Amino acid sequence: MIPAKRLAVSGERIRATYDLALPEEDARDRARSIAVEQTIEFPADLIADDDDIRRHVLGRVESVEGLGPVHSRAVLSYAAETTGSELPQLLNVLFGNCSLLPGVRLVGLDLPPAVLHSFRGPRFGLAGLRRLLHAPRRPLLASALKPMGLAAGDLASIAAEMVRGGVDLIKDDHGLANQPFAPWEMRVQACAAAVRTANEATGRHALYLPSLNGPADEVFERARLARDAGAGGLLVLPGLTGFDGMRCLAEDDAIGLPIMGHPSFLGAFVTSPDAGIEHGLLFGTIYRLAGADITVFPGYGGRFSFSREACASIADACRAPLGHIAPIYPAPGGGMTVGRAPELMEFYGPDTALLVGGDLHRGDVADNAQLMRAAVERAATP
Amino acid sequence: MIPAKRLAVSGERIRATYDLALPEEDARDRARSIAVEQTIEFPADLIADDDDIRRHVLGRVESVEGLGPVHSRAVLSYAAETTGSELPQLLNVLFGNCSLLPGVRLVGLDLPPAVLHSFRGPRFGLAGLRRLLHAPRRPLLASALKPMGLAAGDLASIAAEMVRGGVDLIKDDHGLANQPFAPWEMRVQACAAAVRTANEATGRHALYLPSLNGPADEVFERARLARDAGAGGLLVLPGLTGFDGMRCLAEDDAIGLPIMGHPSFLGAFVTSPDAGIEHGLLFGTIYRLAGADITVFPGYGGRFSFSREACASIADACRAPLGHIAPIYPAPGGGMTVGRAPELMEFYGPDTALLVGGDLHRGDVADNAQLMRAAVERAATP
Repeated sequence: MIPAKRLAVSGERIRATYDLALPEEDARDRARSIAVEQTIEFPADLIADDDDIRRHVLGRVESVEGLGPVHSRAVLSYAAETTGSELPQLLNVLFGNCSLLPGVRLVGLDLPPAVLHSFRGPRFGLAGLRRLLHAPRRPLLASALKPMGLAAGDLASIAAEMVRGGVDLIKDDHGLANQPFAPWEMRVQACAAAVRTANEATGRHALYLPSLNGPADEVFERARLARDAGAGGLLVLPGLTGFDGMRCLAEDDAIGLPIMGHPSFLGAFVTSPDAGIEHGLLFGTIYRLAGADITVFPGYGGRFSFSREACASIADACRAPLGHIAPIYPAPGGGMTVGRAPELMEFYGPDTALLVGGDLHRGDVADNAQLMRAAVERAATP
Repeated sequence: MIPAKRLAVSGERIRATYDLALPEEDARDRARSIAVEQTIEFPADLIADDDDIRRHVLGRVESVEGLGPVHSRAVLSYAAETTGSELPQLLNVLFGNCSLLPGVRLVGLDLPPAVLHSFRGPRFGLAGLRRLLHAPRRPLLASALKPMGLAAGDLASIAAEMVRGGVDLIKDDHGLANQPFAPWEMRVQACAAAVRTANEATGRHALYLPSLNGPADEVFERARLARDAGAGGLLVLPGLTGFDGMRCLAEDDAIGLPIMGHPSFLGAFVTSPDAGIEHGLLFGTIYRLAGADITVFPGYGGRFSFSREACASIADACRAPLGHIAPIYPAPGGGMTVGRAPELMEFYGPDTALLVGGDLHRGDVADNAQLMRAAVERAATP
C-alpha cells in the first residue's frame, strides 16, 4: 500500500463524457479503467479506501448508460487539480492514455471555474475581430495565398488582388512553410507590405495571416517577425505546433495578434466515429481554450467529407457559452465556392468566416472576391 | 492561369504509401486528389502542363493497386523541397490535410537523403544509451513514478527504491505535470537528488526522466532546469508538445539529454485501421526523426489492445535502417508484469526497454525490480 494521504482539493471537478463502442456491462468496466488510466495509472487496490488519492485524485465514474447493442455513454469526473492548471495536462487527463484504448471517443466536456480560469482564451473573438475589420454585422470573407511554388512577389500580388476584392482575412496556404520557392521571411515581408499598401489604396482593413508552421524553437521568433512586418494575424496548425503552442501565441501580449487555427494533421481524431474527439469539442471548444479566434475546418459539401451535423456542431461550439472564454468564428473551407455563398451563409449564420480558396482563382481573383463580398454583405442585410 | 514558373528542384522525392478504404478505381481518383491536397491545394487545371509547379511541386501518383473490394494502396511522391527542410512541414506534406479525408491511412515512407539530412535524429540511440547505462548487451528496465497525488518526497523515495532494485530508466508517470500535490520543480529536484544519491550508494547508473508535459513557452526552460537538477533524461509527450518540440529538445546541445517519447493523446492515429498512421511508422520512424531515443507504446497483452503485429512493427521500425538516423529502443508498457519478462524478452529481443509500472508496486518495489532486472539479465545471457 502507498503511504496514506490527506490532500487539499477544491472539490471542483471536470466532467468528461465518452462514447464507448461496448455494451453497457462492458462499458462499466471500461469506464472504471478510464478513471484509473487518466489519473493515477496505478492499481487502485493498492490504495486505501479512505486515502485522498483514491477519494479525490482517482477519476470518478459518474454514470454509464447503454445506448445501443455496442454503444454506451459514460460520464467521468476528474478533480480540477489533476490538470495542474495547464492545457497540455488538461488534454492529457481528458484523452491522453484513453486515446489508445479501442472504441473510446470523447464527446462532451464541462469545465469548472477553477479550470476555465486557467485560460485566457481568444484575445479577440467574434467582437474583437469585428472591430479590427470594421465589419460590425456581416460574415467575414477569408482566402488563402497559393499555390506552393509561386515566388513571394507573386503571392504578394495575389494578396493585393484579394484586398481589392474585399477579402478580410488573407492567410498563407497552410502548406506554405519555409520552402525555397518563397522563403518564410521574404514571403511574409512581401505579403504584409502588399496588404498594407492595398489597404491604404482602397480604404479596406484586410489582415494578412502568415503560416507559423515552422520549427518549435522558431515559432515565437517568427510570430514577432510577422508582427513587426505588419502581419495582421497568424495561421497556426495546432496538430503540428501543439494546442499549447497556439495558446501561448494567443496569450503573448508582445505578439497580440488574432489567431486562425487550421485542422491539418488532426483528421484521425474525427474521421472514425469510434475514436478520437467529437468535432465540435475538438475544433470548437478545445480551439477556444487554446486561444484561436477563428477555426478552419472542412465544410460539408466540399472536397472533404464532414457531415452537416459535424459542421453544425463545430459552429455551435464556437459560439456556445464557455465561462469568460470569448466566442469565435467557424471558418468552413476546403472546397467552398463562390456560387454556394448564399446557402453557406444561411446554414452558418453571420458570425462566420467563409473561407474560399482555389475557386477564387477561376478567372479574376479580385472580381471573384467582389462577388463573394457582395454575397456576404447581402447575407447580413435584414 | 497562374504565372508560368521555372523552379530549381533537386529531383529528390519523398515516397509515401497510403492505404485507401476504396476500390481500385475510386482509389485512383482519391490518390490524385491527395497529390493536390498535400501540395498545391489548388485547381490543377489552372496550371499549365509545362509549368514546374505542375511538373515538380504537385504531388505525383506513382502507383495505385487494388488489394481487396474496398482496399487499395497508393504510392505518391513529393519533391523534397515541399518540406522546406522542416519537420512540421514534412508531417504536413505526408498527412496534413489528407488526414481529414475518410479512409486514408499513411502506411509507408521512404525519405531521400536531402530530407533525411534535415534531421539529426536521436542524440543517443541504442548504442549511446547503452554507454550511459553501462549496459552493453542486456534489455533495459524502465519504470514510472506514481501515483499522482503523492508528494515529491514520496515519489523520490520510490525512485531510490527503483535504483536499488536495478531499474535503468526511472520516468515520471506521464500524468505528473505541475499539480499542487508535487509541483514540477520541487518534484524534479527531489527525484533527481534521490536517484543521484542512490546511484552513488549502489554503484548503479540509473537515469531519472522528468515529464516535460508543460506549457509550450516553458518547455525549454524546464528542460534546462531538469538538466541542472541532475535529471538523466526527459519524458516528452509529442502528441501534446508536438513532434517538433521533441525534436528541438533532442537536438539542443545545451540540454543534451536522452529523450523518452510517450504516446499519450496519439491513440486516434492508430486505433482505426482505416485512418491515421501505421503503428511502426508513427511510433518508430516518426519518433526517430523527431529525436526520441526510446519510444513508449502499449505492449500487446497489457491494459491496451495493440496487436502483436502492431508491436512487432514498432519494434522493427525502431531498429530498421534510416540513413544516418540512429536506431532506438522500443519500450512496451501499459500493463507489463514481472511474470511476463521472459516472454517479452523473447518477443522483443535485447534492444528493448521493458517498461513495468504498477506491477512493481505489488509488494516491495526494490524486490520486484530486482526480479525484473535478473530476468532481463538472463535474457541477455547466451
